[in-house]
Amino acid sequence: MSDSPPPPGPPLGPPLWEVLSSRTVLQDRWIHVTADAVRDSKGNVLDPFYSLSYPDWVHVVAVTPADELVLVRQYRHGAQAWTLELPAGAVDKADADPTVAAARELREETGYSAPEFRLLHSLSPNTATHRNRAHTVLALGATLTHPTAHEVGEDITVELWPLARVLAQLGAGLLPQAMHTASLLLALNAAGRIDFTLKDAP
Amino acid sequence: MSDSPPPPGPPLGPPLWEVLSSRTVLQDRWIHVTADAVRDSKGNVLDPFYSLSYPDWVHVVAVTPADELVLVRQYRHGAQAWTLELPAGAVDKADADPTVAAARELREETGYSAPEFRLLHSLSPNTATHRNRAHTVLALGATLTHPTAHEVGEDITVELWPLARVLAQLGAGLLPQAMHTASLLLALNAAGRIDFTLKDAP
Repeated sequence: MSDSPPPPGPPLGPPLWEVLSSRTVLQDRWIHVTADAVRDSKGNVLDPFYSLSYPDWVHVVAVTPADELVLVRQYRHGAQAWTLELPAGAVDKADADPTVAAARELREETGYSAPEFRLLHSLSPNTATHRNRAHTVLALGATLTHPTAHEVGEDITVELWPLARVLAQLGAGLLPQAMHTASLLLALNAAGRIDFTLKDAP
Repeated sequence: MSDSPPPPGPPLGPPLWEVLSSRTVLQDRWIHVTADAVRDSKGNVLDPFYSLSYPDWVHVVAVTPADELVLVRQYRHGAQAWTLELPAGAVDKADADPTVAAARELREETGYSAPEFRLLHSLSPNTATHRNRAHTVLALGATLTHPTAHEVGEDITVELWPLARVLAQLGAGLLPQAMHTASLLLALNAAGRIDFTLKDAP
C-alpha cells in the first residue's frame, strides 16, 4: 500500500449551494438573467439570487513584429466613455474553441491576422454573478491583412501602442476595462515578456 | 501668448451615444437593469441596450508583515464553484471614500486591519455593460485584530498565502476572478513589489 498524494487543485469545500427553484426573469438576444432560490452551506435560504448568462468571451492579446499591441478605442455605453481595450468578442456555438473566435474578432475589429492563436487562460468575469468564462488568447506576429468589418453598434478605431508604453501607462488607467488588464498581464507573463518575481519591499 | 499643452488623457473621440429613451426593466435590492434606446455616432439606433447598475466595489490587496496575502475562499453561485479571491465588497453611500469600504470589508470578511488603506486605481468591471467602478485599495502591514462578521450568503473561509506563491500560481488559475487578478497585479506594481519592465522576446 502506498500513500496516495492529495488530488491536485484547491480543496473543494462543502457541497455547492442547493438550488431550490430557478426562473428566468429577463431574456432576449442580449441578456439572460436567472433568479434562483438557493440554500447555502449554513442552511440560509437566499431568494432571489441573480445570475447573468452570456456566451463565453475572448480577449485577444495581439502583438505585432514591431512589438506593438493591437488595441481598439470604442464608445462603451456601460462605462459611458470612449475606452481603449483589447480586441474582444463572444465565442459562437459553432466555434471549435476560443482561438477560432479570437481570430475572427481580431480580424473583424482590427483587420489583423496572426500565424497562431494560443489559448492561455480562462477566468470568470465576475464569480458572484456571471455564469460565463472569459478566455485569454495570445497572437504573436500579428499583421494587417484585411479590411475591418464592424458590426452595428461597434464604434471602433484601431490603435497600435508600443508594448513598453502600454505597460508604463497601465497603472494610470490606460485600459479601463479590468478584465482586459488581467488578460494582458497574464498573457505577457506567459509569453516571457514580463515576470512576476517578487521584489523586496522598497 | 504661449502654446498650451494638449489636455491630459486620451482623445475624447466623437460625442457620446445619444440616449433616445431609457427604462428600468429589473430592479430590486440586488440588481438594476436599464434598457436604453441609443443612437450611435454613425446614426444606428440600438434598442434595447442593457446596462447594469451596482454600487461601486472595492478589492482589497492586504499584505501581512510576513509577506502573506489575505485571501478569502467562498462559494460563488455565479461561477458555481468555491473560489479563492481578494476580500471585496460594495461601497456604501455613507462611506466617505472607497478606503472606508475597504477597511470595513477586510475586517468583516477576514478579521484583519491595517494602519493605512491606500486607493490606487479605479477600473470598470465591464465597460460594455456595467455603470459602476471597481476600486483597488492597498493595505500593507495587515494583522488579525477582530473576529470575522460574515453576512448571510457569505460562505467564507480566510486563507493566508505567501505573496510569492500567489504570483507563481496566478497563471495556473489560482484566482479565477478576472477583476481581482487585475487589482492584485496593479497593486503589487504600484507598491514596487513586481515590475512591468518589458523583457526581450525569449
